[in-house]
Amino acid sequence: MSNCIIAQSGGPTAVINSSVVGLLNANKELKTFEKVYGGLNGIEGILNRNIIDLSSVSENEIDNFRFTPSSGLGSCRYKLKDLDSCSEEYESLIEILREYDITSFFYVGGNDSMDTIAKLSRYAKQNDIGISFIGIPKTIDNDLKFTDHTPGFGSAAKFIGTTALETYLDASVYINNGIFILETMGRDTGWLAASACIAKLDGKPIADFIYLPEAAFDKIKFLNDVRQRFEEQNKVYIIVSEGIRDKDGRFISEFDCVSQDKFGHVQLGGVSEYLRRIILDAGFTTRVKALQLGVLQRCAMHCASDTDLTEAYNAGKMALQYASQGESGKMVSINRLSNEPYEVNYPLVNAEDVANNVKYFPIEWINKEGNFVTPEACSYFEPLIKDSPNLAFERNLPKYKVFNQ
Amino acid sequence: MSNCIIAQSGGPTAVINSSVVGLLNANKELKTFEKVYGGLNGIEGILNRNIIDLSSVSENEIDNFRFTPSSGLGSCRYKLKDLDSCSEEYESLIEILREYDITSFFYVGGNDSMDTIAKLSRYAKQNDIGISFIGIPKTIDNDLKFTDHTPGFGSAAKFIGTTALETYLDASVYINNGIFILETMGRDTGWLAASACIAKLDGKPIADFIYLPEAAFDKIKFLNDVRQRFEEQNKVYIIVSEGIRDKDGRFISEFDCVSQDKFGHVQLGGVSEYLRRIILDAGFTTRVKALQLGVLQRCAMHCASDTDLTEAYNAGKMALQYASQGESGKMVSINRLSNEPYEVNYPLVNAEDVANNVKYFPIEWINKEGNFVTPEACSYFEPLIKDSPNLAFERNLPKYKVFNQ
Repeated sequence: MSNCIIAQSGGPTAVINSSVVGLLNANKELKTFEKVYGGLNGIEGILNRNIIDLSSVSENEIDNFRFTPSSGLGSCRYKLKDLDSCSEEYESLIEILREYDITSFFYVGGNDSMDTIAKLSRYAKQNDIGISFIGIPKTIDNDLKFTDHTPGFGSAAKFIGTTALETYLDASVYINNGIFILETMGRDTGWLAASACIAKLDGKPIADFIYLPEAAFDKIKFLNDVRQRFEEQNKVYIIVSEGIRDKDGRFISEFDCVSQDKFGHVQLGGVSEYLRRIILDAGFTTRVKALQLGVLQRCAMHCASDTDLTEAYNAGKMALQYASQGESGKMVSINRLSNEPYEVNYPLVNAEDVANNVKYFPIEWINKEGNFVTPEACSYFEPLIKDSPNLAFERNLPKYKVFNQ
Repeated sequence: MSNCIIAQSGGPTAVINSSVVGLLNANKELKTFEKVYGGLNGIEGILNRNIIDLSSVSENEIDNFRFTPSSGLGSCRYKLKDLDSCSEEYESLIEILREYDITSFFYVGGNDSMDTIAKLSRYAKQNDIGISFIGIPKTIDNDLKFTDHTPGFGSAAKFIGTTALETYLDASVYINNGIFILETMGRDTGWLAASACIAKLDGKPIADFIYLPEAAFDKIKFLNDVRQRFEEQNKVYIIVSEGIRDKDGRFISEFDCVSQDKFGHVQLGGVSEYLRRIILDAGFTTRVKALQLGVLQRCAMHCASDTDLTEAYNAGKMALQYASQGESGKMVSINRLSNEPYEVNYPLVNAEDVANNVKYFPIEWINKEGNFVTPEACSYFEPLIKDSPNLAFERNLPKYKVFNQ
């Protein structure tokens, strides 16, 4: 009986470790492989033989690891060179995998990781190497094509929705309120910012405006919209994606947020800080707050979606099953069969197709004004944030376990 | 049978509404007052007769209100003028209270609210007005004297500890990590930043350094400390209070963080942004991230401490009992009777003493180097974050109810 290895790559999410545990537990049941190895720090660590035996870790530790945010096997941002230009890395990697008697390689990641899976699978096929390469999707950005959504996104959306609701309440306590701007991640796509439409009070969305990279940002229209809403209701709550851009495709955060400190450093203040300043400049209020959620939105396990955790777990489990069927060069996707009741399955798609594509937020889910999303978007998001995990606690904080410390 | 009124003032917390519900429910049991009125937007709203009858609100709505963050009756930052200079406001207020047949006035707030309670109580005594004035403490800053701690602080500490743990994991995934700086609130005192010492992984605090306003900040020592730790372990995790200052008492955020944008606006980048820039300037790493928790730390009910919620509730309940005993000009305090098992009671203290004092983080709980806290501090914090509330959900986000919309 041979072994397999699983590793993580790219930016962390709250649920990336659940995919590892899903695969590990499926192997305990199916006994497809003798050992499940964990590659620390992705391809980069594996090339340094930084490999641990996950099969021998205690069940208790694995249970904590399953509900630990961020990449508990460590990560990397390492892209394999093109095979035509350099085959050395490929040879080194295959040599190491053979050394450990590994016949299946699983990579949990986004576009770049799927590129790695596609390249390695092609190399193995061309050289008659009996190792299969399977990708497991992961990204809070939700921008992978050929999958309804990505593990990691639902938990980020739940955190964004929850904190939008809470900061809206915080921003609404005075007789004279001001303007609050919440900035989400999403450099290229608006999925994260759009997900804030799920935050409602008495059935009504708390956000007045939502700005996405997919709708060209117009400063004049923005200021008119905000001023008018402020005059009507004495407060305005705005959600903005870090990646909004103007009609010529230039990032707002690049060409306008730059200022210099006294040392001459160029500062990127973030797009919310830029919007804060142009509102102040317009002069209709002096009360403007901006808040960047930053990395909190990708690591807040304490506010994770159990649906997301379960799907990440199942994607890992399915990857093992597909490997045992001899598949390679594929990614496990999530396919939404039904919205109510919410139901999904996990078909395979080509890793190469995923690697070279970006899934944008649908234009038809953005209102005509370009400053909010439609009810269809809200229906898409709502099932993804269902239920909360039952976390283990230690001294009243979540008990987390990682392997890369 | 006469009536009473309760109102909220100052910055919001996660648990300020629990104090209102504690008082309301105590009155349902004890029937001290016929009606419990809610003053919307504190003194400012009451002076505009912005008053609702909380006794007639459904139990279901009150239950949701209890677990809703931020000031659900609205707030104000309104300080009564000194009686000597102007008695008009006092007369107007008493007239309105008499109109509603109110004989007890409860104010949930911090120093300024206790100043209001002291002034109104004095005015009532001097003029033989049979209305009692009782304060209920509230502030995430934990800087009120004559109370072991303040309602609101435990939940803020729990959120800070939880997110410190999670962002630490997020900042530790690569082979080459960098420096992460988490900025908490606390303009004058270090309680919030210090509370991050409770965040531990495998029993060891995740923070390398904690900087508080109570320990003079030295830029040269800071850079030496961070550089040395970075060379040892390839990553450094720093907690900093927004209010740190140098040996001459000047705020670091005031004299060094200022830069100007292209419109000439002065920007206060926050102290974490300043630290990020001086580390970059020192040149030993290019990977430095700074994150301000901002208002999240005072409104994150989804991560609240149940101990904190219960104590806020009990403080409201005790306020009603003390009023029925004829007390006035006092604040309900929290007195820690025992740490293990954790036990408190709620004695009265003079509102005036609280109003004119600030409780600093104890110097003896700061290490000699001025860059961390002692185990005694950790023991003080740990009981305050116990247990999580059982929140009601609606469409998988917390169901919140406020009265000031």
